[in-house]
Amino acid sequence: MNAILTAMHTRRSCRAYQATMPPRDMLEQIAKAGSYAASGRGKQSPVIVVVTDKETRDQLSSMNARFLGVSSDPFYGAPCLMVVLAEKTIPTYLYDGSLVMGNLMLAAHALGLGSCWIHRAKEEFACPEGQRLLKQWGLIGDYEGIGHCVLGYPMGEMPAPQARKPDYIRFV
Amino acid sequence: MNAILTAMHTRRSCRAYQATMPPRDMLEQIAKAGSYAASGRGKQSPVIVVVTDKETRDQLSSMNARFLGVSSDPFYGAPCLMVVLAEKTIPTYLYDGSLVMGNLMLAAHALGLGSCWIHRAKEEFACPEGQRLLKQWGLIGDYEGIGHCVLGYPMGEMPAPQARKPDYIRFV
Repeated sequence: MNAILTAMHTRRSCRAYQATMPPRDMLEQIAKAGSYAASGRGKQSPVIVVVTDKETRDQLSSMNARFLGVSSDPFYGAPCLMVVLAEKTIPTYLYDGSLVMGNLMLAAHALGLGSCWIHRAKEEFACPEGQRLLKQWGLIGDYEGIGHCVLGYPMGEMPAPQARKPDYIRFV
Repeated sequence: MNAILTAMHTRRSCRAYQATMPPRDMLEQIAKAGSYAASGRGKQSPVIVVVTDKETRDQLSSMNARFLGVSSDPFYGAPCLMVVLAEKTIPTYLYDGSLVMGNLMLAAHALGLGSCWIHRAKEEFACPEGQRLLKQWGLIGDYEGIGHCVLGYPMGEMPAPQARKPDYIRFV
């Protein structure tokens, strides 16, 4: 069985993480894989911000929790994350950024890490606090948050893949 | 080097295809890989329509050409394609559908096929002709076209990966 197809079938969203930080080299490999996602007309509208700084990670978690309306950690204890944003002036930006997220999640799985797409990046980086972070990160431009890919070593066993809905695929 | 990361680095959009139809089994494997993409809250908002019927393929190509404002084949001669649509009532549908497209393109590459995301599926399936096709395919619901993944054996050599922009990734 092709290793790539197997990786796709077995990847699951991970919702419990160990506190251990994955090595920098592993994060670099994952981010690089993300950057190689296809983009509309090859314009590479997305950017990837790898967050390993604990203070920034916690700040993003708090912001995310506020938009979700909870006080728990929406990042499930993951020690690090990658924020994907994309240049809104490029018509395909939302599709482009999503493809980056897909590569990040699959690359993480390929290297033995758990990951999960956490939404509300759009709201987070549209608010003044998020806009200040973008400025601090040197991101000047009209960026929209696409998603957070939280990352880390899974806590416990990963669940088996969920069954696919029966009418997912049809041939014509 | 991890096979999955290598596949991500070497995948390119293919813009010239041989007329030969890939075997049904290969298309089934690719569509299955697509269906295993992550989706918001595991709701599986997308569907995949595998088009091998020449008449339907040509009809979609003509519709697409009209929206693009050309008379050439926007599918680059690819003998088949997969249309990804997603249920608009699910808030994450656009991100979900894009992840399916990403899996399709990478799975195709893993099996030695070329592929390319062709846009304008949104416009195509919003117009009366597209709406009729959805009905014909048994797709009842509020579906939006996410993309066409055109597929086939590449004609000639695939180009080397394009360089990534220098500021694609930053660490904080």
